[in-house]
Amino acid sequence: MSRWQPNAQGRLAQAALELYSEQGFDVASAASIAARAGLTERTFFRHFADKREVLFGGADELRDFLAHKVAEAPASADALDAVVGAITAAGVLFRQDRDYYRQRQHVIYANAALKERELAKFATLSATLASRLRCRGTADPGATLAAEAGITVFRVAFERWTGDTGRGDFAEFIQSTLDELRSVICRSAC
Amino acid sequence: MSRWQPNAQGRLAQAALELYSEQGFDVASAASIAARAGLTERTFFRHFADKREVLFGGADELRDFLAHKVAEAPASADALDAVVGAITAAGVLFRQDRDYYRQRQHVIYANAALKERELAKFATLSATLASRLRCRGTADPGATLAAEAGITVFRVAFERWTGDTGRGDFAEFIQSTLDELRSVICRSAC
Repeated sequence: MSRWQPNAQGRLAQAALELYSEQGFDVASAASIAARAGLTERTFFRHFADKREVLFGGADELRDFLAHKVAEAPASADALDAVVGAITAAGVLFRQDRDYYRQRQHVIYANAALKERELAKFATLSATLASRLRCRGTADPGATLAAEAGITVFRVAFERWTGDTGRGDFAEFIQSTLDELRSVICRSAC
Repeated sequence: MSRWQPNAQGRLAQAALELYSEQGFDVASAASIAARAGLTERTFFRHFADKREVLFGGADELRDFLAHKVAEAPASADALDAVVGAITAAGVLFRQDRDYYRQRQHVIYANAALKERELAKFATLSATLASRLRCRGTADPGATLAAEAGITVFRVAFERWTGDTGRGDFAEFIQSTLDELRSVICRSAC
């Protein structure tokens, strides 16, 4: 087997999700994942530090991406615009298809420790967004509220996107979820 | 020492928070907490299953309270009204003073496992609210968004209330935080 494998990381991730779904996250081993992907365990550990990183390896990239997008938002954008611009653009980071992410959600919901890790990930994303909003001049509690609202929209839109059998792209789900949030929160007082 | 101790639970909770702050949550022992409160370790375990329950013992009560309040909201109340009514009323559950809750926040923020537990608590509260909203006729994603927005307002208002040196009551912090959320989310399109 040659050292270089075409798309080894994607194949390992797909095999891991299949085995996490079939056997449970705690039971599936790195060796069995590698075998399912037709690769060696050593190759698995060249791509992932451990079994959990298959599910959460993209978290730091997403955090840095969102932070960068908020920082580079035009000065004319208010806090919510900056956050919505960032979470909408984040769709480019979803390199697998929707079935993959739907399966990932099922694996995470089935395991208490993974659910906690997922909650911690979103809390970190929200804190990062709030921090960047403060840097560009939004005071608290506005910065925290805009960040939390943005992460809520992101999570709900992601859930709807993975569950959708049609063809809407991620950006459309962000927009329609934001519209729904506005219809829940905002009074037509005028 | 008589079996009955006036406000033993409150004294134990106060002593526990002091020791968690001074020594760290992982170091402080049930025996040292009981000694600080002038009570026995056995009395500690009559009131709390473990050290963590001192910090999170009220979580189930809060969940049931919020669920009940949403369920009994008048039919005329929309989803957000029902949630805001519930989180506003929840102020009656804060039986200690603000210093106590401020100290509790510091203890939790200083410990990764406690922070995860706190996030899980809020996720459960949000899921409970969303479920009750669906029962009274709000479809998703509206139910989830109203619940998430409500829990965000609750958390931010609680943080501001514990940090406030003035005399505003919890209900006022809920209202002003909700106003801030509206000013972040809602466009004055008219």
